Amino acid sequence: MTIKITPSYKEISDRKVKARDAKFIKEWLAPESILPDSSVKDVTKWIKESGCLNDLELEITEADAPTIIENIKTKKWRAVQVAEAFGKRATLAHQLTNCLTEIFFEEGLQTAKELDEYQDKTGKTKGPLHGLPVSLKDNINVKGHATTIGMVKYCFEPEIMDTDSVIVTLLRNLGAVLYVKTNVPVAMMMPETTNHIWGNTTNPMNRLLSAGGSSGGEAALLKLKGSPIGIGSDIGGSIRIPASFQNLYALRPSFGRFPTYGARSGLPGLESVNSVNGPLSISLESMETYCKAIIGQEPWNHDAKVIQMPWRTVELPEKLNIAVVVDDGWVRPVPPVRRGMNIVINKLKEAGHEVIDWDPEDHLRASQIISGFFLSDGGVHIKEVTEPTGEPFFEYMKGYETATELPVSELWKLQAERTTLMKKFLDRWNATASQTSNNKPIDAIIMPATPFAGSPNAKFRDYVGYTSPFNMTDYAVGILPVTRAVKDLDLKDPESTNHSKTDTTIWEDYDPEEVHGGAVAVQVIGRRFEEEKVIEMLKVISKLLDHSDI
Amino acid sequence: MTIKITPSYKEISDRKVKARDAKFIKEWLAPESILPDSSVKDVTKWIKESGCLNDLELEITEADAPTIIENIKTKKWRAVQVAEAFGKRATLAHQLTNCLTEIFFEEGLQTAKELDEYQDKTGKTKGPLHGLPVSLKDNINVKGHATTIGMVKYCFEPEIMDTDSVIVTLLRNLGAVLYVKTNVPVAMMMPETTNHIWGNTTNPMNRLLSAGGSSGGEAALLKLKGSPIGIGSDIGGSIRIPASFQNLYALRPSFGRFPTYGARSGLPGLESVNSVNGPLSISLESMETYCKAIIGQEPWNHDAKVIQMPWRTVELPEKLNIAVVVDDGWVRPVPPVRRGMNIVINKLKEAGHEVIDWDPEDHLRASQIISGFFLSDGGVHIKEVTEPTGEPFFEYMKGYETATELPVSELWKLQAERTTLMKKFLDRWNATASQTSNNKPIDAIIMPATPFAGSPNAKFRDYVGYTSPFNMTDYAVGILPVTRAVKDLDLKDPESTNHSKTDTTIWEDYDPEEVHGGAVAVQVIGRRFEEEKVIEMLKVISKLLDHSDI
Repeated sequence: MTIKITPSYKEISDRKVKARDAKFIKEWLAPESILPDSSVKDVTKWIKESGCLNDLELEITEADAPTIIENIKTKKWRAVQVAEAFGKRATLAHQLTNCLTEIFFEEGLQTAKELDEYQDKTGKTKGPLHGLPVSLKDNINVKGHATTIGMVKYCFEPEIMDTDSVIVTLLRNLGAVLYVKTNVPVAMMMPETTNHIWGNTTNPMNRLLSAGGSSGGEAALLKLKGSPIGIGSDIGGSIRIPASFQNLYALRPSFGRFPTYGARSGLPGLESVNSVNGPLSISLESMETYCKAIIGQEPWNHDAKVIQMPWRTVELPEKLNIAVVVDDGWVRPVPPVRRGMNIVINKLKEAGHEVIDWDPEDHLRASQIISGFFLSDGGVHIKEVTEPTGEPFFEYMKGYETATELPVSELWKLQAERTTLMKKFLDRWNATASQTSNNKPIDAIIMPATPFAGSPNAKFRDYVGYTSPFNMTDYAVGILPVTRAVKDLDLKDPESTNHSKTDTTIWEDYDPEEVHGGAVAVQVIGRRFEEEKVIEMLKVISKLLDHSDI
Repeated sequence: MTIKITPSYKEISDRKVKARDAKFIKEWLAPESILPDSSVKDVTKWIKESGCLNDLELEITEADAPTIIENIKTKKWRAVQVAEAFGKRATLAHQLTNCLTEIFFEEGLQTAKELDEYQDKTGKTKGPLHGLPVSLKDNINVKGHATTIGMVKYCFEPEIMDTDSVIVTLLRNLGAVLYVKTNVPVAMMMPETTNHIWGNTTNPMNRLLSAGGSSGGEAALLKLKGSPIGIGSDIGGSIRIPASFQNLYALRPSFGRFPTYGARSGLPGLESVNSVNGPLSISLESMETYCKAIIGQEPWNHDAKVIQMPWRTVELPEKLNIAVVVDDGWVRPVPPVRRGMNIVINKLKEAGHEVIDWDPEDHLRASQIISGFFLSDGGVHIKEVTEPTGEPFFEYMKGYETATELPVSELWKLQAERTTLMKKFLDRWNATASQTSNNKPIDAIIMPATPFAGSPNAKFRDYVGYTSPFNMTDYAVGILPVTRAVKDLDLKDPESTNHSKTDTTIWEDYDPEEVHGGAVAVQVIGRRFEEEKVIEMLKVISKLLDHSDI
C-alpha cells in the first residue's frame, strides 16, 4: 500500500471552507444542539418552528418580492431589517442543507443601510428593487469575492474578482441587496450539487435527496426562504432540475434576453449551446418582478449579446392548446412524476384547455448533440483547471477526463445538424395547428423536467434528456411545481419498460419510501423568446393546482 | 513538359455555362454587334441609350419598388409586363457584366401570369410584394435549380435543390417574382466575384474594375437596373463591399433579424460568425419596402434562429451624433474614398449634426479574429468540395488550402476573446456620450466600406478590415452612396503612409486614371438590431448629398 501525501486540493478546500465559516455572523447561527438530527428528512418547516427567528423576521422572509419592495417603500420595513431577516434565515438554511459558498452579510447590511439613508434623505427609492435581497449562484462575479464554480483552483487570489458581472451591475442599479452566493457542482456540469470545496447540498424537502444541479445551492436556499429570489444558470437543465427538485418556480430564458456577460463558465468560449441565467423563487410574482426590473434596465446596453427586446405585455387565449409528453421513450419517469403529469393534464382538461400529445421523437438526439458540444474540447479546459490542484474527477465528470477533442470541422457538422433539428422542432410546433380544434398551434409543451421526484444524494442517473433538448432549441421554459411524492400512492411499477439501460437502472433504483416527500414539478415550454407568455401560462395553470403542501 | 488531360472541372463548367446560356430568351438578347466594345468602361447608361428596351420597359425598370407595386395594384402595369421588362434588362446587364448564374425567366413569367390572373379573379393582390421582381444571390436555394456558390461540384444533379430557402418561401408568399440568381466568388469567400464556373463579374461603372464580392453579381445587376431589389449575404463584408463598389444602398442586418435557413454556405456549420442576408438596391425606398415585407411575414415562425422582433417605427433625434473613421490606421483609403468621407463629414456638420472621431483601435484585431474563424476548420470543408472536380484554388483562397485546423479548445479561446471585444465595442460606443455636446452617445459610426473606390479586376488586395469588425460586433450596417472617383481630383498621394505592407501595396497600386468613375460609398453603422434606425439615418444623410451622378 502506498502512503499518499494529502493532495494540495484538500488543504486549499479546507482553508476556503474555514474562511467562509468565519464570515457567518455568530449571533445568526443556530446552536448545533438544536439543529435537527441528520435523520430528519423534511426540514422545510423547521426554521419557522425553531424559534430562531422572531415574528417580524418570519413575516419578512415569508413575503414575496412585491410585498417586500412595497413595505420598504412605505417604510413599514427598513432595508436593514429585511437584510438581517434574510441573512439570518439564509444562515439557518445553510446549516440545514449546506447551500452557501461566498458569504458577505456585512456588505449586504451596508448596502441596506445606505439604501435606507438614501430613502430618508431623498424621499425616493433607488430603483425598482430597492432593498430586495437577491441570492446569486456561484458562477456570478461579485467584486471582492471568489467565483469558485466548485473548483479548487478558483478559491483564492488571483481569483478574487475585481469587477461585477453585468447582471450584478444591473441589480445594484436597481437597488437590490446582495449577500450570498450559492453552491454548485464542479464546473456546473453535473445535475447534483457537489464538489471538492463545499461538498454536497441536500434537499430540504427530503435530505436523503439531492438538491439537484447545477443551481442546487440556490434551490435549497430559496426553498427554505433564505432568499426571496435567486439567480441560477442553465446550459442543459441547471435551473430547471434543481427548481423541479425543490418545487420552485423558475425561468430558463432564451439566450440573449438576460445579460450573461462577465460570469464564470465551466466551459468558457463554448457557444454551440449557450448558458443562460434566470430567476428561481417560491413565488411567481417575485419572479415576474425580477424579470421586469432587469429587462427594464435595457440590458442590451450593458451586454453585447442581449437583444433589444423590452418586457412585453402578453394576452393569453382563453383556451390554451397544450401538448404533453409523459414519457420520452428513453427514460420513463418514476411513478410520482407520472402522477404529477396526470394531475396537470386532468386539471387542464377540466378547465377547458385542449391537450394533445407531443411526439418526443428527436429529444434523444437533441440531448446527444448537447452532450457532444459539452465534450467537444475533449475536457481540455476542465483539466486545465483541475490539474494544478490535483482535484480528482467525480464519477459523473469522467467524460471530461476521457473525451476526445473534436477538430473544428467535426464541430461544424454537429452545429449544422443542430440547426436543422431546431428548424424541425419549429416546423413540428407549427404543424400542431392541424391537431387542435381551433386550428391554432400549441401554446406550450408540458413535460417533466427530470424523470425523478428527487434523486438520492450521489445517485442522479446520467440523463438530462428531459431538459437539454430545450437548450438546443433555446426555448423559454418555466418550471411549475405540482405535488410531492407519496410513498403509498407512488408504488413501484410491477415491470420495467426497459426503454434503455438508464431506464432499467432507474426502475431498479426507485424506492417509494426513499423519495417520499420529494418534489414533483413540470416544465412549461414556450417558443423561443416567449418569456412573458411562459410566465402568464404559469399563472393560469398554477391557479388550477392545489399547492397547499408543495 | 507533361501533357495534361483537361481537368474534369473544366468540362463540367463548360457544360454548366452552356446550360445557362440556353435559358436566355433569344429575343431578349442584344445582338453581339451592338454591344459596347470591351474598351468601353462605363456602361451604366448603355442600356437606356441602346434602344433595346421600349419606353414602357424603360419606365418600368427605372421605377422603384413602391412604384412598381402600386402600378401593378392599380393595373397600370401588369405583373407580366414588369417581369418581361426586368427579364430583358437583366439579360442586357448580363451581356455587359457577366452577372447571372441560374436563369429562370420562364418561371418568373409564369408566376407573373398567375399573379395577374389572381388579381383579375379576386380583385386583390397576393401580398405586399405582388408582382415585384426580386433577384437572388446564388447561395439562396430555389427549388428546381442549382446553388453553385461558384463551386463546380454543385453544378448539376444531385445538387439541384428540392426545396426553397426560407427567404424564398416568404418572397413567394409575398407575391414576389423570382427570375434570376447572380454570380458570386468561390464559396463566397473572396471580395471579388469570380470562380471556375461563371468567371468574373465586372463593374458596370468601370468595367476595368471588379464588381466586388461576394454579392458582386447582384450589385452589377442592380446597378444596371436589371432588378429593382436583390438579396445578398454578408459574413465579412459581402453585401457591403459590392454595394459600395456599385454605389448602391444596402443593409447588413444583425444575425437573427432576417431568415437565413436553407441557404448554401461556403463554410456550413460555422457559427463563430454568422452569415446574414440583406437587401441591395439603387433605391432606399425599395430597400425599406423589402424589409417591412419580410419582417411582416413573422420570419421567426419559419426560421428557428430569427428573433421575435417586428419592424419598428423609429424617430431620429433632430441632431445626430456621428463618429467617423477616415483611416483605420492599418490601410489608408485611396484618395477618392477619403474625399468621399470629407464630403459626408462636411455635409453633416453643415446640417447641424455633431461629428466626433471613432478610435479604430480594435478593428485590426477584430478583423483577424474573423479571419481566424473562417480558417478554423483548416479549409477541410472547402477542400471536400473542390477535390472531387479538381477545381484549383484562386490565389485569394490559398489560405483555405494551407490553413491548419484548430482543435475546439482553441476555437473556444478565440470565441471568448471575441465576446470580450464585443463588450468593449459596446462600452466604447456608450462612452461616446462623454464626448458629445448633448451627452448622448453616438447614433452611428460612418466610415469607408473598403479602402478602394473600386479595385481593378483580379487585384483586390487582401484586406476587408473596414467591414469585418462589424460582422464581429454583429451591428446593423447600411451602405450610403456618396460620389465617384475623378481622376483629376483624386490624385495620388505624394507619399505612402506605410501603415502596413498592404497599405504600401495599395498606395503603389493606386492609379487615378484606372479607377476613374469608380464608386465611393460609406458605411453607416448602427448598433446591433438597429436596422430601422440605420435606414432612417440613410434617408437623412442621403438628402444632404448630391446624388446626380452616382
